[in-house]
Amino acid sequence: MVRTGGASVAAGPTLAVVAREAGVSVPTASKVVNGREDVAPETRRRVTEALDRLGYVRRPRFDAAKTPGLVDLVVHSLDTSWSGAVLHGVEEAAHDAGLEVVVSAGLTRTRGGRPERGWLDKLTARGSSGVLFNLAELTASQYSWLEQHRIPFVMIDPVLEPPPGVVSVGAANWHGGVTATEHLLALGHERIAVIAGHQRKMCSTARVAGYRSALASAGVRHRPEYVRHAGFDEGVARRRMLELLDLPEPPTAVFVCSDRMALGVYGALSERGLSVPDDLSVVGFDDLPEARWIAPALTTVRQPLSEMAATALRLLVRMMDGDRPESTRTELSTRLVERLSTAGPREPSC
Amino acid sequence: MVRTGGASVAAGPTLAVVAREAGVSVPTASKVVNGREDVAPETRRRVTEALDRLGYVRRPRFDAAKTPGLVDLVVHSLDTSWSGAVLHGVEEAAHDAGLEVVVSAGLTRTRGGRPERGWLDKLTARGSSGVLFNLAELTASQYSWLEQHRIPFVMIDPVLEPPPGVVSVGAANWHGGVTATEHLLALGHERIAVIAGHQRKMCSTARVAGYRSALASAGVRHRPEYVRHAGFDEGVARRRMLELLDLPEPPTAVFVCSDRMALGVYGALSERGLSVPDDLSVVGFDDLPEARWIAPALTTVRQPLSEMAATALRLLVRMMDGDRPESTRTELSTRLVERLSTAGPREPSC
Repeated sequence: MVRTGGASVAAGPTLAVVAREAGVSVPTASKVVNGREDVAPETRRRVTEALDRLGYVRRPRFDAAKTPGLVDLVVHSLDTSWSGAVLHGVEEAAHDAGLEVVVSAGLTRTRGGRPERGWLDKLTARGSSGVLFNLAELTASQYSWLEQHRIPFVMIDPVLEPPPGVVSVGAANWHGGVTATEHLLALGHERIAVIAGHQRKMCSTARVAGYRSALASAGVRHRPEYVRHAGFDEGVARRRMLELLDLPEPPTAVFVCSDRMALGVYGALSERGLSVPDDLSVVGFDDLPEARWIAPALTTVRQPLSEMAATALRLLVRMMDGDRPESTRTELSTRLVERLSTAGPREPSC
Repeated sequence: MVRTGGASVAAGPTLAVVAREAGVSVPTASKVVNGREDVAPETRRRVTEALDRLGYVRRPRFDAAKTPGLVDLVVHSLDTSWSGAVLHGVEEAAHDAGLEVVVSAGLTRTRGGRPERGWLDKLTARGSSGVLFNLAELTASQYSWLEQHRIPFVMIDPVLEPPPGVVSVGAANWHGGVTATEHLLALGHERIAVIAGHQRKMCSTARVAGYRSALASAGVRHRPEYVRHAGFDEGVARRRMLELLDLPEPPTAVFVCSDRMALGVYGALSERGLSVPDDLSVVGFDDLPEARWIAPALTTVRQPLSEMAATALRLLVRMMDGDRPESTRTELSTRLVERLSTAGPREPSC
């Protein structure tokens, strides 16, 4: 059931039905759903099986008819243009669905983008209707915790490939990598480097794979020394760019896998007295507002962050309604936004 | 009482005490607090007086021991660096206080930054512990609605001077205007223009007053044609700058009352083939990230947005505790951040 506009449409079994199915009392079934420890393992197993079999969907504890549904959005940071775009998309779509959004930057408070355990406890206590995770990396036990508590959740641009069955929304990263590289190839570049994010991050791996596919299709030799990882960090990207410039045969163009890292690349070029695009063409990824503000304005691959976020919210609403999306991964298309940071190579590449 | 960490410390009278004081039943007192219409005017008056006399503080409807307190943050937009900084400050301070934040961009959905009426109804239904309004402009009836429902609230950088007794947090805007102008005077400028926000907006009026004070202290003549209003809009600021350049005696420096408007000023100068700071010195206000990204990097007056937001949250927590801050207006200091957009005038000003 979804708590939209105060209407309560019943869907899925109540906890009483689950308890009967499992042959336990309602308080016992409730203990299992609420993660309490004082339940015998065998009883817990029976209840969990009944929950699964019947497709039980958790309901918030407070009076749904009087209380607008709350969904949780958990982000890495709140003061970046990236999170601003995501928040904007989630809030608009939530408003349309008659829901409100509790925002938490809990992911910043632990290492590796994993939410704190206390935060998960709070979710259950409050009776969250559902959770959106933005750029999160959950542990196996956190995934199973969410499953166990029957809290629907959707990942927005998950860091790692989520386990089977977990619903996520992202951008068409591979295709974006192809587009960026094809743009540079069309301008006549052959010495094209890539500054990637994390080697093990899904979005980054896909972008680099797109870069390699485009090079291969064009019959351009892949040079391993042209592939550098900077962990989506502006300062590290600056150092990687300096390393690329110090190669015996430096690149004439670079595909940088995020706009923020492109800021670091601009810094490196300015440090060396080189100019964009005369000495080096630069393509970014994201199309955050800063891509327009920096000089020269950055050619970049736009990923529709607000739309991805709104899509995730709408999927979450369907799941709160007891529905399972047929496809667990939704990818929204990217497109190249041409600005002033790309041009043909100064000299024919050798 | 504050619902922090699950502890419920009683403070202030219960609704039963209020009802006894007013000589009405508890359900009747409850109707008044919940804004129901079916109460006789005389009864409503008696209850309202008792609420005021006893300093009744509304409690959330759900079980405070089990539910973490929720506070509401209502903003204009979610996808600007401005709101990102405010959100960051509110969320961090809320986390420290054991509270969670419901974020709504309701102010964008009506004209003039006024929240929708339906949104206020939702607040009561959910039993919000308190509300922070960012850049909001409330009507007299909305103020009295919040008072009547005993929902504590704090304004962050209110658009207009709030009514007496309303608690707000802002920046030392007047002093910021003085600092910006003194910086330009010290560089040797005398033909200093100002591009302000709205004529009737408090923060803008204070910044322009600071500009005038600094000119007066330095014995520099005030020229009314050098004062332009652009409503904090980048595009309008661009047009105002073009008008200033078309004056018989154009300025050699301009104090722009927001960084976003300074982006428009940069655009106008670039359109005329003029360069910053050689042809015109520019000082902004805010110190948003974009001030560092644009070229040349913008000299600006920093207002501590995250700290202002955190201060507002902490004041709100005190009010939820039944405490009234002694001072209703808190101003945090601003400071000049010197970057590359200011220099001495090219020719001595006449």
